[in-house]
Amino acid sequence: MKVIQDLYPSRTDPEPRIATRKDPVVHTDAEPDGNYLLPEQVDAYRRDGFFVVEDLFDRREIDALLGELASLSARDDVRNSETSITEPGSGAVRSIFAIHTWSDVFDQLARDPRLVEVARHLLGDDVYIHQSRANMKPGFRGKEFYWHSDFETWHMEDGMPRMRAVSCSIALTANHAFNGPLMLIPGSQNTFVSCVGRTPDDHYKQSLKRQEYGVPDEASLARLADEGGIAVPTGPAGTATFFECNTMHGSNGNITPFPRSNAFFVYNSMENRVGEPFSGTKPRPEFIAARENIRPL
Amino acid sequence: MKVIQDLYPSRTDPEPRIATRKDPVVHTDAEPDGNYLLPEQVDAYRRDGFFVVEDLFDRREIDALLGELASLSARDDVRNSETSITEPGSGAVRSIFAIHTWSDVFDQLARDPRLVEVARHLLGDDVYIHQSRANMKPGFRGKEFYWHSDFETWHMEDGMPRMRAVSCSIALTANHAFNGPLMLIPGSQNTFVSCVGRTPDDHYKQSLKRQEYGVPDEASLARLADEGGIAVPTGPAGTATFFECNTMHGSNGNITPFPRSNAFFVYNSMENRVGEPFSGTKPRPEFIAARENIRPL
Repeated sequence: MKVIQDLYPSRTDPEPRIATRKDPVVHTDAEPDGNYLLPEQVDAYRRDGFFVVEDLFDRREIDALLGELASLSARDDVRNSETSITEPGSGAVRSIFAIHTWSDVFDQLARDPRLVEVARHLLGDDVYIHQSRANMKPGFRGKEFYWHSDFETWHMEDGMPRMRAVSCSIALTANHAFNGPLMLIPGSQNTFVSCVGRTPDDHYKQSLKRQEYGVPDEASLARLADEGGIAVPTGPAGTATFFECNTMHGSNGNITPFPRSNAFFVYNSMENRVGEPFSGTKPRPEFIAARENIRPL
Repeated sequence: MKVIQDLYPSRTDPEPRIATRKDPVVHTDAEPDGNYLLPEQVDAYRRDGFFVVEDLFDRREIDALLGELASLSARDDVRNSETSITEPGSGAVRSIFAIHTWSDVFDQLARDPRLVEVARHLLGDDVYIHQSRANMKPGFRGKEFYWHSDFETWHMEDGMPRMRAVSCSIALTANHAFNGPLMLIPGSQNTFVSCVGRTPDDHYKQSLKRQEYGVPDEASLARLADEGGIAVPTGPAGTATFFECNTMHGSNGNITPFPRSNAFFVYNSMENRVGEPFSGTKPRPEFIAARENIRPL
């Protein structure tokens, strides 16, 4: 087996560390052709680690996706699958992983050139779906999702070697500032925050009460947010946010009555396919991290 | 003892009910004199149940308040008092009740004509402090505060007879949309949401998992928010939000590194002093609801 060097070690030390990104953010020097991607969008992505396209999908398209999602959520085979996350009490479906394998409608969405051509350009390569899912965050009791770099997880738990993947979140409901929207730290894609891995010494006990594997430390987060601020893309249903795999992001809880649903696709470079997880753990299931079922889009 | 009619019954029925407000929102027909309050602010308050004044206090004043708050939070007598709420783990002070009784600086703030003259006009009467406190909501792990009408609590637990009180929240740090700011439902001051009180029958079990006394039901909240939307006043430190005692409000949690501190004063009409709690329970302590120590400001 080929041994791949770990360019981004994490979860090994008792103290967090900050390292500089070792990969380009935009993996091509070519100009975008302007059909699916504009030069200023590429510039924003390179600078901030994300960009937002309002109304990338129109109302009719969003209604079709919402209808399909409602049908899927009502199907017993979907609900009972390991790919679905349901709420303990009500049994309501909160997430469906590998959504593009469950539904032609979502498979077509995953292949839509408005998404794929953007990913192909930014990654400078053919792309495949590393992960897909639909999320339905309820009103009144939507839970927070703490800050994280997706890449840190995909690197350590899935064996993704390099920072050469891009996520797209498509809002299926309106993103308000108040209903637990995605928050991103502009510029954070350039820094790799290595997370604490071993149970630390006594003086860390306090700050680590909530700490789990892959959780960035508060000092590093404060530094990133002081430098870059916090961006909260809001917009109507149909708004798409493209963000780089190492961009630090999270979301607050949601006590408002307004739920929040989105479709989420991770495009990875064909040259960046996952190998052995860098944490040495067992690979996660195929529906969380594609390993066998790879086909360029 | 004089028996006072309960105009706003709550916590008695197994099903929530909605009732119309039986008190005016603005308790005077006089025009404001324009020194401390403008006619359009009164109009906004009547219509929405709140209004916001950016920069009511300047940077120098805010710095003095923050300095005083830091001194108070470091004092052992303050920290160990029942009027302080501290964080279980770190012992950090999160709230100091009756803040105006602890400090001349905050006592002066409570008596500031920029607050008192506004309250006197809106309530059409001399006013006193029903409750005061300073809140320090931390970054990274600031907890949500679920929707509630303050009046519902003050009526049931403190015996406040009528809707004739106004709160003022003074931001001591910047209120961003993303650091768990106050959210209000415009127009909700006109509706009294009677909360569920007895353990309900089986079919309610689901929705009531998180239910406690004084928590409005989801259907009523959805109705209010559909009609009025959700307002999130943001602004620099020094921004003041005046809101009517029955205006439905709450706040989401805060995972951002930016903490949120505010000073909070409740002005009540001298004619609206509290009596026996309408829930029949023992009155709450003086530092939560002034009962003995009443003096017009």
